Amino acid sequence: MSSNVETVRVELGDRSYDILIGEGLLDRAGAEIAARLPGIRAAVVTDETVAGLHLPKLQASLRAAGIDHATVVLPPGETTKSYSHLQTVAEAVIEARLERGDAVIALGGGVVGDLAGFAAGIVRRGMRFVQVPTTLLAQVDSSVGGKTGINSPQGKNLVGVFHQPALVLADTGVLDTLVDREFRAGYAEVAKYGLIDRPDFFEWLEANRTHVFAGGPARIRAIAESCRAKAAVVAADEREEAGARALLNLGHTFGHALEKAVRYDPARLVHGEGVSIGMALAHRFSVREGLCSGQDAGRAEAHLKAAGLPTRISEIPGPQPTVPDLMAAIGQDKKVSRGRLTFILTHGIGQSFVARDVERQAVERFLADELAEG
Amino acid sequence: MSSNVETVRVELGDRSYDILIGEGLLDRAGAEIAARLPGIRAAVVTDETVAGLHLPKLQASLRAAGIDHATVVLPPGETTKSYSHLQTVAEAVIEARLERGDAVIALGGGVVGDLAGFAAGIVRRGMRFVQVPTTLLAQVDSSVGGKTGINSPQGKNLVGVFHQPALVLADTGVLDTLVDREFRAGYAEVAKYGLIDRPDFFEWLEANRTHVFAGGPARIRAIAESCRAKAAVVAADEREEAGARALLNLGHTFGHALEKAVRYDPARLVHGEGVSIGMALAHRFSVREGLCSGQDAGRAEAHLKAAGLPTRISEIPGPQPTVPDLMAAIGQDKKVSRGRLTFILTHGIGQSFVARDVERQAVERFLADELAEG
Repeated sequence: MSSNVETVRVELGDRSYDILIGEGLLDRAGAEIAARLPGIRAAVVTDETVAGLHLPKLQASLRAAGIDHATVVLPPGETTKSYSHLQTVAEAVIEARLERGDAVIALGGGVVGDLAGFAAGIVRRGMRFVQVPTTLLAQVDSSVGGKTGINSPQGKNLVGVFHQPALVLADTGVLDTLVDREFRAGYAEVAKYGLIDRPDFFEWLEANRTHVFAGGPARIRAIAESCRAKAAVVAADEREEAGARALLNLGHTFGHALEKAVRYDPARLVHGEGVSIGMALAHRFSVREGLCSGQDAGRAEAHLKAAGLPTRISEIPGPQPTVPDLMAAIGQDKKVSRGRLTFILTHGIGQSFVARDVERQAVERFLADELAEG
Repeated sequence: MSSNVETVRVELGDRSYDILIGEGLLDRAGAEIAARLPGIRAAVVTDETVAGLHLPKLQASLRAAGIDHATVVLPPGETTKSYSHLQTVAEAVIEARLERGDAVIALGGGVVGDLAGFAAGIVRRGMRFVQVPTTLLAQVDSSVGGKTGINSPQGKNLVGVFHQPALVLADTGVLDTLVDREFRAGYAEVAKYGLIDRPDFFEWLEANRTHVFAGGPARIRAIAESCRAKAAVVAADEREEAGARALLNLGHTFGHALEKAVRYDPARLVHGEGVSIGMALAHRFSVREGLCSGQDAGRAEAHLKAAGLPTRISEIPGPQPTVPDLMAAIGQDKKVSRGRLTFILTHGIGQSFVARDVERQAVERFLADELAEG
């Protein structure tokens, strides 16, 4: 176990909390939780895959710290983010007779974190919540910032609450159990923070990408810097009201449309891959609109490619999505405000901005050309 | 239509809102909403009973104000506060393509308000919400303060969120459509505000009770004063963290236990009746503990009786609950903090306080004597 633990503070007044990032934190989870939330009881929520890999270690750590806990193990996969599993988790928490001051602990990736956080946000109108993210995507994105939710038949994440965790424990060692494709997909979100407004971080990633993938101090630093970037945006705009938080959606409007076009089939496209193509598209569209140099767009794309990520729609296996499919999905996106199209565009590496009133036809023509080029 | 409209402001920083109280407000609902929330679209949520009485008037008023709206009509009754109806409402709101800035409008009593408010709190992680309460109980209690929720198999209101409305429109004229028993039950909560910390208001109610029941300015004043009382408590302790909000539970720990003992059978006991008996019990228990004079307890009880409300457990028709039944329900109550019993007790009329660490056995002996006396 490394003693190299970075702490990132998310400043939200009386809802402020720490994110701890380091190797071997799972062994210390019980002690870290007990030190910050003395006397609590807990319900651990996880999925079958993660339970097989990491649950015994977390449970041992909770027991050693004297934290009495129930455990809920859910089926893995996106379909778990449903009303029925929300009810399952909520009722398990109530059955365990946990009170408002007790905690729901999410051990897993974004699905588990979003679902368990939503349950924690609604049982007794809000209990404490601890995130123990086990994927790179969850460590740098979904476990930070308080967005929780489930999917509805009409779309993903359309139902949920803002409910901040009391603590996030990101054990960078558990990421060694991820398959390469899942690590790469999470890396798209790491690169995103550089591309949004941290050009120095992007440059550092260009020089250190292989070390981040290999593990150790570079990985801890990349994750901590990503959490700092997200924490700064969340502190400025907790509930996505002021607009600052919208910057986190760089690559996401295009990305969501692509995910929707392949019906969220993870064999064809996972979220981080959609974001990677989406970021490349946002840069190329920005070039076309005369906002960004072709050199900067090329540099963004080259880095994503070097990380093994897709940057073109044509790289998605199977039948290509059509322009009308993509435009319909873009029109349904949550970021549509009263019918106008909002995109995150860029003036260059680390110079992203919120573009409102983007012309629908310009996007349509751009996508048609992208699909024609292949 | 009377021009006598009282406005009560609920001060909650950027979540502050107005409660308008007056006769004929339903006709002006559209105009009042459009003036405060310009450009919104809406989903009206109501139940079959209320739809028959008041929906056409609200819809006409919304149309006249140019507020495009969808309508969801639910079955009446407490069982509507379920996960499945929550999903029904959430999906109807999403299907109507409402955005975060649009509004869910609850037209009905506490069940509709709690359910619609919860849906408004979770669709797109929080939309605007307008309450149009149509029962006295909802006008003076459930529509104010932002508590929303549904029932779970383990108990009532165990799942929900705090989600403040943007506006509350309490048309005191619609209360003429309530059956006497329902008006009386709501009146228990009006009397409660006097008994908590407004002795002058209680004295005014003693002198003006029949006018409040008859309607007109006295009713408007009683409802406005009740809303002011609740607004003050909510402003001091929005999320029931500081303890002040617990005072609103005067009569509720005993009351909930009685409701649970009759399995929430409204033929035997409705919520306000449970609260009435509960308040009488809280006063008598306070006398027994040497906290309150017998005279004040007698005065509280006499007023509730004069309003046609029950004040003794023996007044509940059917088999009497047992002490173990009641104690089990009290032990499950949300107001139990880490195993200790918390009750709202009183030093006299308008002098209630939060009593923590109430001895379990003292409550047990008191209830045994109450049941023995009949």
